[in-house]
Amino acid sequence: MTDIPVTHPRYHSLKLRERLLVGLKAGLASEAGLLAHGRGEAFDYLIGERSHDFASEAIAVASALLVTAPRPVVSVNGNSASLAGAELVALAGAFAPLALEVNLFHHSPERSARIAESLRSLGATRVVESATDAAIALPGVASARRNMNPDGLADADVVLVALEDGDRCHALVEAGRTVIAIDLNPMSRTAQTAHVSITDELTRALKLLTEQIVRDRDTPTVELAARIAAYDNRAILERGIRTIRTGA
Amino acid sequence: MTDIPVTHPRYHSLKLRERLLVGLKAGLASEAGLLAHGRGEAFDYLIGERSHDFASEAIAVASALLVTAPRPVVSVNGNSASLAGAELVALAGAFAPLALEVNLFHHSPERSARIAESLRSLGATRVVESATDAAIALPGVASARRNMNPDGLADADVVLVALEDGDRCHALVEAGRTVIAIDLNPMSRTAQTAHVSITDELTRALKLLTEQIVRDRDTPTVELAARIAAYDNRAILERGIRTIRTGA
Repeated sequence: MTDIPVTHPRYHSLKLRERLLVGLKAGLASEAGLLAHGRGEAFDYLIGERSHDFASEAIAVASALLVTAPRPVVSVNGNSASLAGAELVALAGAFAPLALEVNLFHHSPERSARIAESLRSLGATRVVESATDAAIALPGVASARRNMNPDGLADADVVLVALEDGDRCHALVEAGRTVIAIDLNPMSRTAQTAHVSITDELTRALKLLTEQIVRDRDTPTVELAARIAAYDNRAILERGIRTIRTGA
Repeated sequence: MTDIPVTHPRYHSLKLRERLLVGLKAGLASEAGLLAHGRGEAFDYLIGERSHDFASEAIAVASALLVTAPRPVVSVNGNSASLAGAELVALAGAFAPLALEVNLFHHSPERSARIAESLRSLGATRVVESATDAAIALPGVASARRNMNPDGLADADVVLVALEDGDRCHALVEAGRTVIAIDLNPMSRTAQTAHVSITDELTRALKLLTEQIVRDRDTPTVELAARIAAYDNRAILERGIRTIRTGA
């Protein structure tokens, strides 16, 4: 006996697929995003479709970083907006300085605007788009993904990326940003490059992160700093990889 | 140094994606197929994007079964037609009795006809469609996937399924068919249910299978029977799972 109904994991996985297909129809996600999501599904399957302690420990440090950063930004792409629009808006709502910045691999001004509008319709108040006339370029990244909004990424110190590709994650780290990544594959270049790698499914991770941030708004800064200083992302990644490899 | 160029695995993976996107645009594959392919990509990544001996041993038995069966059928869906149309036609061309039968999870008469036409345009001579007025129902399967063509699956004893879902694979086994499955996840219900499970990427597996069939057309039947009798699919699956888990 368990308190999670036996039907739950499959139900959740199918619900996420449905969200992504709705996102595709609505012009938020792209077809390439479906392929990427399928890969994520396989890794979620291999970790048992549940949040592990290597994820919650990374989330605790992610929360500490976001709460202590003066200008934290969450980078949002088509898949994350489709799969976790409500969860992203709830996260931003839990901590006023947090901005959502739309940044797309397959960029078009229309798709970027649709995603921003979708986040606003869910209640987000601080939404910016990467690709604007005033954008500042992130070195080492091709395409419109290089753009950083002056009121968002360009001025941010701590950045949360979700379902991000390795090139951009690497470039953000090279550009001096502290990068938190949510990525189901702990062997991916994104997970290997980020400072804090949350190996968990996006909606599960965002819910846990939001809860943690609500707690950490009242946590003494020295305690948050100690948590950040004690963190070892390499060890966390190795625990994730071991779980995938051994199924334990 | 290796005789495979270092750029090869990624190149092949991207080429397959391109084929699938072309298949989607041409109305052969479905959007759900992109999700399924992404899962396959993750498992191929975990086995190192190469054919292992647990695959070639299963392929040797698959060849023996197909060559000795009087009415062997290969079930073709939108993803397999998009990813491996040419390889499927080459396989069928290597052994005259082999028929290709179109059977779709997301069935429409138009999509089924388009896939049949695509296979014929690649040179296939024996192509049938599952869903016809004369179709015979496979018990235990919902939707048009239950249909079996009287000149194909309905009368077949050995069936090769590729990228198939677990429900239909199970129903084919229950209905007395000897089922060979090509599936990158050795833990999937399809792989666990089939009599011979080839844990390999579809185009790689089909090329190896075609080569093996060309050799086996001249192999004495007693030798083929001995190969079939000695085969242990459970042990093959365990070797595939161990490779995914340990990366070895």
